[in-house]
Amino acid sequence: MINFEQLIVSPLDGDAMRAAEERLDALSKPLGSLGALEEYAVKLAGIRGIVGGKLSPRAVLVFSADNGVHAEQITPVPQAVTALQSAAIAAGGAGVSVLAKQAHAQVFVYDVGINTRNTVSGVIDRRVMDGTQDIAAGPAMSRDQCLQAIKVGYDAVAERKNAQMLGIGEMGICNTATASAVSSVLLHLSPEDTTGRGAGITNEQYEKKVSVIRRAIEINRPDAAHPIDVIAKVGGLDIAAMTGAYLACAAERIPVIIDGYISACAALCAYRMNSGNANYFFASHKSEEIGQTYILRELGLKPALNLNMRLGEGSGCPLMFTILDASMLIIDDMATLAQGSIDGTGFVDLRET
Amino acid sequence: MINFEQLIVSPLDGDAMRAAEERLDALSKPLGSLGALEEYAVKLAGIRGIVGGKLSPRAVLVFSADNGVHAEQITPVPQAVTALQSAAIAAGGAGVSVLAKQAHAQVFVYDVGINTRNTVSGVIDRRVMDGTQDIAAGPAMSRDQCLQAIKVGYDAVAERKNAQMLGIGEMGICNTATASAVSSVLLHLSPEDTTGRGAGITNEQYEKKVSVIRRAIEINRPDAAHPIDVIAKVGGLDIAAMTGAYLACAAERIPVIIDGYISACAALCAYRMNSGNANYFFASHKSEEIGQTYILRELGLKPALNLNMRLGEGSGCPLMFTILDASMLIIDDMATLAQGSIDGTGFVDLRET
Repeated sequence: MINFEQLIVSPLDGDAMRAAEERLDALSKPLGSLGALEEYAVKLAGIRGIVGGKLSPRAVLVFSADNGVHAEQITPVPQAVTALQSAAIAAGGAGVSVLAKQAHAQVFVYDVGINTRNTVSGVIDRRVMDGTQDIAAGPAMSRDQCLQAIKVGYDAVAERKNAQMLGIGEMGICNTATASAVSSVLLHLSPEDTTGRGAGITNEQYEKKVSVIRRAIEINRPDAAHPIDVIAKVGGLDIAAMTGAYLACAAERIPVIIDGYISACAALCAYRMNSGNANYFFASHKSEEIGQTYILRELGLKPALNLNMRLGEGSGCPLMFTILDASMLIIDDMATLAQGSIDGTGFVDLRET
Repeated sequence: MINFEQLIVSPLDGDAMRAAEERLDALSKPLGSLGALEEYAVKLAGIRGIVGGKLSPRAVLVFSADNGVHAEQITPVPQAVTALQSAAIAAGGAGVSVLAKQAHAQVFVYDVGINTRNTVSGVIDRRVMDGTQDIAAGPAMSRDQCLQAIKVGYDAVAERKNAQMLGIGEMGICNTATASAVSSVLLHLSPEDTTGRGAGITNEQYEKKVSVIRRAIEINRPDAAHPIDVIAKVGGLDIAAMTGAYLACAAERIPVIIDGYISACAALCAYRMNSGNANYFFASHKSEEIGQTYILRELGLKPALNLNMRLGEGSGCPLMFTILDASMLIIDDMATLAQGSIDGTGFVDLRET
């Protein structure tokens, strides 16, 4: 088994980044005036070692798993929805499916641990176990099962080495609860601060959700210095697999897009294994789930979109693919000041202030 | 001449909006979980009187003009750049040109008042005058010239009645200064609050810019209750034409996208003539120019994108076209809960809390 905590992460390519900056500053616009689109173009050059270029093929990888904490009745949504909606994503009818099609991206759905006796139609079977145990009563899974799930995500990326960018999504009823538990531990925040209302719960269910998360942390005593321990004890199989996917993207130098709260939680786990991993991450959208905001701040990432989305599935990733495409078109296709006979020597660079 | 202040604005189609809401709530996702994408789909239904559908053809209308206040030396950028960059936009090499191409949108550039003796290559000649007068010394233009410029924008939209959405952009050196003057008056804010650093200026130039704007307001005494008076006295021909374009979009029931600060300033002018106009507006991105934030708040609009852009030209509009496309694909192409055999009767609607 790969030692996931000791993977070597390459630094960004400084020469390519400087070449991208020079090119951007020669284009027909005030210096830095395209803001984050310019920053993305520079970061992408650093990741990929080239200036500009097409970001195709691209795909969203969706990791599906069930969570034993569903037994605590913290949601009105039946657990069977994990399997049903995973099939809907694979069949092309879900939110992420439709948005991925718009962005010319494929969607691959992995069953890391759906709680059903059957295989799920259209979903790639990599099941480690039939859902986790209830974190409010003990650990979600063993360390070994957690490593197996991380490897599912790692291999999913390794199988698509030709991808020029990837998005990381999930499907799993109760996974905002496990994400809150993991995030609380890793960020040293109270469950109140990291817990939102997920897909939709009442005030009463919210209170219960917070107390269940607090109990899970108290009885399992996860070690905040070791993300694998935290995921195994209070996380989920989807979070584990997503963490592996982020690790693999950094290892393979593939730009990778963070979706919402659970996706960000896994990115945080990968970041805590090696902070260099964040050099390969892009934040797509600001989720309605408050915990995601804390995580993105910790990762030093600013989301491009603010659409109050809280669907999951990787649904923010395809929208971000289009924005990163835009940053590449800017650097590849814009005319220069010189071509337009514009003298830019007097231009003031606000980025230096 | 049309009485622009007395145009009748149709209310949104309530039946179509309710039908859109019903359709969205039947889709395979938690209620409201696609956030603003769902709100856009409902608003678009209200504007267009139909649920879903393709938003094509679409175009960005760019209004170019020079500002006499350039004589006050508040920018290092030569006035000739207005003509040169307008030509670059029309030729396809500017930021907005490249982003529009990505979004399958056309770009039309109108010369409302560029300060040059020549016509500008590729630009539609609708020049009212060769740039305005210096607002720090007197009114920018006469009321009649302002009405002519408003009509340029109004007619530009009327000429593209088949457009399913439009974006409104501009090119004009010093137009963040005129936008600040107009916004200060209409929002009853001090010039310090509404003035940013435009394309790029030094601290010294910034102080001068603020004092010039203050002087322009003091000597011209524009009437905050009458946007046409404000534009004529301390605004510009581009702002006037853009205002006319917003008025025409509402009159023709065409969804219209606001770009950055100057574009938002014109939207505010149209809103002050009839608040119903805002029902037809969509905010694309949060500009680096602080004044835009105050305006969008006044208009009750939340930008979808946060990319720290400050280019102008309508560059945020094509990115928003793609997001509105996404909202239409959601309502048109997603499967329903029923199709996925998911029982949604227990789902909790967070939008009601």
